[in-house]
Amino acid sequence: MSKIDKVVLAYSGGLDTSVIVRWLQETYGCEVVTFTADIGQGEEVEPARAKAQALGVKDIYIDDLREEYVRDFVFPMFRANTIYEGEYLLGTSIARPLIAKRLIEIANETGADAISHGATGKGNDQVRFELGAYALKPGIKVIAPWREWDLTSREKLMQYCEQHKIPVDFSSGKKKSPYSMDANLLHISYEGGILEDPWAEAEEDMWRWSVSPEAAPDEPVYITLTFENGDPVAIDGERLSPATLLEKLNKLGGANGIGRLDIVENRYVGMKSRGCYETPGGTILLKAHRAIESITLDREVAHMKDELMPRYANLIYNGYWWSPERRMLQAAIDESQQVVNGEVRLKLYKGSVSAVGRRSTESLFDERIATFEEDAGAYDQKDAEGFIKLNALRLRIAAGKGRKLI
Amino acid sequence: MSKIDKVVLAYSGGLDTSVIVRWLQETYGCEVVTFTADIGQGEEVEPARAKAQALGVKDIYIDDLREEYVRDFVFPMFRANTIYEGEYLLGTSIARPLIAKRLIEIANETGADAISHGATGKGNDQVRFELGAYALKPGIKVIAPWREWDLTSREKLMQYCEQHKIPVDFSSGKKKSPYSMDANLLHISYEGGILEDPWAEAEEDMWRWSVSPEAAPDEPVYITLTFENGDPVAIDGERLSPATLLEKLNKLGGANGIGRLDIVENRYVGMKSRGCYETPGGTILLKAHRAIESITLDREVAHMKDELMPRYANLIYNGYWWSPERRMLQAAIDESQQVVNGEVRLKLYKGSVSAVGRRSTESLFDERIATFEEDAGAYDQKDAEGFIKLNALRLRIAAGKGRKLI
Amino acid sequence: MSKIDKVVLAYSGGLDTSVIVRWLQETYGCEVVTFTADIGQGEEVEPARAKAQALGVKDIYIDDLREEYVRDFVFPMFRANTIYEGEYLLGTSIARPLIAKRLIEIANETGADAISHGATGKGNDQVRFELGAYALKPGIKVIAPWREWDLTSREKLMQYCEQHKIPVDFSSGKKKSPYSMDANLLHISYEGGILEDPWAEAEEDMWRWSVSPEAAPDEPVYITLTFENGDPVAIDGERLSPATLLEKLNKLGGANGIGRLDIVENRYVGMKSRGCYETPGGTILLKAHRAIESITLDREVAHMKDELMPRYANLIYNGYWWSPERRMLQAAIDESQQVVNGEVRLKLYKGSVSAVGRRSTESLFDERIATFEEDAGAYDQKDAEGFIKLNALRLRIAAGKGRKLI
Amino acid sequence: MSKIDKVVLAYSGGLDTSVIVRWLQETYGCEVVTFTADIGQGEEVEPARAKAQALGVKDIYIDDLREEYVRDFVFPMFRANTIYEGEYLLGTSIARPLIAKRLIEIANETGADAISHGATGKGNDQVRFELGAYALKPGIKVIAPWREWDLTSREKLMQYCEQHKIPVDFSSGKKKSPYSMDANLLHISYEGGILEDPWAEAEEDMWRWSVSPEAAPDEPVYITLTFENGDPVAIDGERLSPATLLEKLNKLGGANGIGRLDIVENRYVGMKSRGCYETPGGTILLKAHRAIESITLDREVAHMKDELMPRYANLIYNGYWWSPERRMLQAAIDESQQVVNGEVRLKLYKGSVSAVGRRSTESLFDERIATFEEDAGAYDQKDAEGFIKLNALRLRIAAGKGRKLI
Repeated sequence: MSKIDKVVLAYSGGLDTSVIVRWLQETYGCEVVTFTADIGQGEEVEPARAKAQALGVKDIYIDDLREEYVRDFVFPMFRANTIYEGEYLLGTSIARPLIAKRLIEIANETGADAISHGATGKGNDQVRFELGAYALKPGIKVIAPWREWDLTSREKLMQYCEQHKIPVDFSSGKKKSPYSMDANLLHISYEGGILEDPWAEAEEDMWRWSVSPEAAPDEPVYITLTFENGDPVAIDGERLSPATLLEKLNKLGGANGIGRLDIVENRYVGMKSRGCYETPGGTILLKAHRAIESITLDREVAHMKDELMPRYANLIYNGYWWSPERRMLQAAIDESQQVVNGEVRLKLYKGSVSAVGRRSTESLFDERIATFEEDAGAYDQKDAEGFIKLNALRLRIAAGKGRKLI
Repeated sequence: MSKIDKVVLAYSGGLDTSVIVRWLQETYGCEVVTFTADIGQGEEVEPARAKAQALGVKDIYIDDLREEYVRDFVFPMFRANTIYEGEYLLGTSIARPLIAKRLIEIANETGADAISHGATGKGNDQVRFELGAYALKPGIKVIAPWREWDLTSREKLMQYCEQHKIPVDFSSGKKKSPYSMDANLLHISYEGGILEDPWAEAEEDMWRWSVSPEAAPDEPVYITLTFENGDPVAIDGERLSPATLLEKLNKLGGANGIGRLDIVENRYVGMKSRGCYETPGGTILLKAHRAIESITLDREVAHMKDELMPRYANLIYNGYWWSPERRMLQAAIDESQQVVNGEVRLKLYKGSVSAVGRRSTESLFDERIATFEEDAGAYDQKDAEGFIKLNALRLRIAAGKGRKLI
Repeated sequence: MSKIDKVVLAYSGGLDTSVIVRWLQETYGCEVVTFTADIGQGEEVEPARAKAQALGVKDIYIDDLREEYVRDFVFPMFRANTIYEGEYLLGTSIARPLIAKRLIEIANETGADAISHGATGKGNDQVRFELGAYALKPGIKVIAPWREWDLTSREKLMQYCEQHKIPVDFSSGKKKSPYSMDANLLHISYEGGILEDPWAEAEEDMWRWSVSPEAAPDEPVYITLTFENGDPVAIDGERLSPATLLEKLNKLGGANGIGRLDIVENRYVGMKSRGCYETPGGTILLKAHRAIESITLDREVAHMKDELMPRYANLIYNGYWWSPERRMLQAAIDESQQVVNGEVRLKLYKGSVSAVGRRSTESLFDERIATFEEDAGAYDQKDAEGFIKLNALRLRIAAGKGRKLI
Repeated sequence: MSKIDKVVLAYSGGLDTSVIVRWLQETYGCEVVTFTADIGQGEEVEPARAKAQALGVKDIYIDDLREEYVRDFVFPMFRANTIYEGEYLLGTSIARPLIAKRLIEIANETGADAISHGATGKGNDQVRFELGAYALKPGIKVIAPWREWDLTSREKLMQYCEQHKIPVDFSSGKKKSPYSMDANLLHISYEGGILEDPWAEAEEDMWRWSVSPEAAPDEPVYITLTFENGDPVAIDGERLSPATLLEKLNKLGGANGIGRLDIVENRYVGMKSRGCYETPGGTILLKAHRAIESITLDREVAHMKDELMPRYANLIYNGYWWSPERRMLQAAIDESQQVVNGEVRLKLYKGSVSAVGRRSTESLFDERIATFEEDAGAYDQKDAEGFIKLNALRLRIAAGKGRKLI
């Protein structure tokens, strides 16, 4: 076990990370600096201060990172229409590099030689935190208590609390959720419990951010989203900061039953896991972004983005946000977004979001050419013959030489 | 103009292709063979016989291709989770290679030296028909009347009918749709009319195959879809032929408001065009196929499929079904599907389809490993440390040498 | 035939383009502006002035574009280690977008409404010229005489010269080469003649830029190439301008028998064609660039570049330099090159070029870690176990469930 | 440390693996089964029997795997024109999956519960052996002594030999090479020693399989290679078994100075390492395979292969031969090779190999179309206009709307 003097812990204020504070102090005999971030998880972060103080922590960092999170992480990711495995909007994955970056900044500020986190040894989050940390500060040490300690059951954890006088919040009366949950401005996720059987349907009362489509209003809601350089900047003409805009989309989506997802995904550590997600605002944003791109992007650029996207999604899912290859892909993606400006009109209704209109001063949609009516020579249909003939040439030669395709 | 003796025409029985019959006879002085296929467009094909006879056609082909269409074209395409430009399920594109193949087969049977079709010079279908034809019979001649004649407006067409005594079906009383439509077992499409303004919302009464989500039942419908080798074979345990199964999915989807799509897409000939589509069964099938793959496919295989998919979609959209590169991709896709067996439980509700359960004897989901509970040593969390450390090594070295990522 | 007032012609001063001057004047009754560029083809461009004047041309452009060519086209392409079909260094392809750009600039300056070129209707160059022209000035008209006229044989061309008093340079005594050749600072190419039989070996006296390996010196030559941001800037410590540097590499390579290539390639217009190429400097540059990247690029960046390269090569080969998708890829490539600085030592010998040393202040090669000797804890071999175990996890689960790989 | 009863060791007969035999017996108290394979490394394998016996081994496997190696591993890999990082022909990587497979087969036959190998914890080979083993027999245990023991220097190893009476072969008089070497029928590799400085040139006397280009004959050697389904089957018309053919190519290449390579490569475990390789036969084979493909493969198939190749190379380099994703790619590659039949004529000369002729009954090279001479209408040059115009359409629309590319 290496000598550690000071460690920065990603601290939620909850029971598990409170135990980690004490465990770090005891096991490593080191000073613990706590870092608690508001990234829109929907819980107050300020109470973490008193809890940390009660555990003897002197250096306590509590940051509101919501705008930075949406502006510098969520929006750049949505420029690529990023989806993991055809379904997942990466709501957990994209929050991790920001936490990793801030942990390292605080380590630098406080002279800490290690960071620590409460992620388990089976999941993706440990990888995302640690890859980010190593990439930004290669000499940093990482303590992952869940991979080290023997508090491997809830009972042992409770016993540890008792022994170490860590207050367990029984009085709150909140029934412990049967799910492992995680939330930030982009989404809330559910794992564990009955979800560990992929054949079992999630119970309706699991979902927290959205009403069921059944319970959504009977009338559709229409909104208009304005984009500049590929990022949304206004809803119905009202300019909003990134975090405010996403929050409003979450409300709109949640109220209309939009953004629920139930999948089995492949973790980077090699196992399959069942996850349920609510991403109301992100689901709307993805639809809208594709729609504004559909009239402003060149075809080949759009197709290249589609082909690169799965790899970009992989990078983020696997924890390589802080990597030169992500930056390289981002350079290509961002280059494409300068023309992605305009408005998209969306219909939200009982779980569905549809793009029903899109317009832009940068539009490449050319009604004169596309029309079924007389186009006054804008397009010469005879060009199509040569186009087809030469595109077919290699196929005709091959068939002429006896190659069979059936 | 080259000498043509006999031409096989893709004949719908409608006004436009009836005009083409006469125009071919007159312009090329050749015999016309008509070919009318039932690919599930929802209209009787038999009436085409009398119409063709009235135009003096002697060789009349009327084929029910529904099973072949779904089995050999639609299902293989869905094995790849194929989507064009992130949205479009390729309902028109995938029907064309079958038509092209049948046109060539009939040309071979009848000794025809040319084929003809009613697709315009602005669209993708001309490309798909002709690439297929050239690939299967390189010496074939192709006559595309819309690229040649001067009947470039409805008025001129009507005038031609009058001059040539082609009966125009006024008595039917059917109001001419303002949209250009196309249908087959996979979808129905709408273009033209007010859709030529991409900002204008499609009118509710345009949609023909699905009720609006608003009008869909208030109770969800649950179905179970069984897959074998990547293809669906049964609904709720009842084995159905490919066409019957897709037809039933269309009914189920349509009744629950599922599968509407409104997009601007990029045509192969270089322009953007607005299209609306209803693909009720296909939308359900895509969701279900991804769900069964999620528990049966290896991660890297799934990711490779996702990365290859846009290119495969492009091939089909652009008309290269009959090409060696499509066969090469298909070989890879089909190789992956042997293990894609099992059942998916789906919830259909007011425009949404969700996978709520999936199970398979081939499942790679390992509850023992994935569990949040004690796993009895199935997974050694300490392995994660080495995994992360070596994956980070290149990043650590680079950072140690002063490389910056921020 | 559309009305043309003034046309800018890419004019070599040779017989074919001289005929085109006259043919354009006669056929279109328009003014012809000639444009002759020195891009290192190795022939004087100034004589083109008198020839153009003799044909009655008033606006004559003669430009030395060598530095621009190498700096803005050749070097950016080499940043991607660009090779078409595994072999071809794109020496013809990369010169065309510069010509297209200059044609359009001159059209803008002179108010011309058309451009013209001497490329045939079978080749790639017509595509490259015209795609570039249309992309930069969409309303431009293009006249491609070889696709229009009936001077389809050498005899007819000669007859036309006689009729129109175009001086044919018999006195020069130069025997007409049996090959169709094209040269610029990057390469010289040979097509046609006996090369039209892909089984026939090219004759030794065809090659013009390089000695045969047999005739090369018996002693190897060593040089050191310095790179900055991915571009070569010095040979043996002597800083040279882009064109001067490439010219010197050509001499060095040519003298040592380096850079000959004999291939059958696939043209964009759909046919296969045999081509022989000499690219002495480019062959050295590619080897050197890969070598400097090998110690300065991150692994994943290098691999991503390798995967994107074939597509980038395709874009250039097919004539899409002036396209948004090429710019998008270039953004990614250029982003990767900021760290590609350092020196490569090369051995040139009898047709081979080898990188025998590479060094850089940006090197990511870490001798402490890579060593076979004691590394004093720089690398913990035990990490490898966890790395392998988790990378194997999906394979172990699958095998445990009975999946077969043999 | 888990309980091991019997372990199968990849045994070379050399000092290191002899130490491992004893160390396994002592450390794990288990029976050791040795497995020694002839994969063309150029050393007798039979002497390993006596050495193993002397160490008390009862189950001794000695296999000649040369034909299987070339037929089932080397040739399938060459079908893809596989190169890692633009240079490396994967001579070490491709031998490992065969060893892994055989280790597992022997474990199954002998009822062993573990395998062991002599690869270090820093390299790629440990990964390749172990991934293969886990993929083929998920419950197998793996013992990697170099990651476990403390014999981390040559001195400690020698001391161990003395203590345990392991005969060290001093009498052989062979000077220990300063390089770490590995050989099989595809190549010989060199690492370590002065190569650990990437600026230092390899010494001439390091190379063992090839003469220097300087020392190669002054006359070129011409050979003709025949391919069937993408694999070479004959040299100069003489049909040879896979291993015999590769061996002969190695001799031919080595005698003409062909196939030396000096690179810095990126290991899967995250570090860069310098390696020198001699791959005489493989270098010839790659050139020849590309040449036969150049006339027999469709353009788009060839391009798709080129785009997939880097990923396929990665899989093999990283040790994923035994994986479903490699099988999926192989299915696509093999699908493409059925038409790759014919002959290639090659010139070998002083370090270079050139394809100087290629012919095939499956050739898609069409002289009638490709010719610069009159083609009698085989190709209509006017088709090119429409081809270019429609390919330019999206660019023209964009430019017309004011998009800038410069």
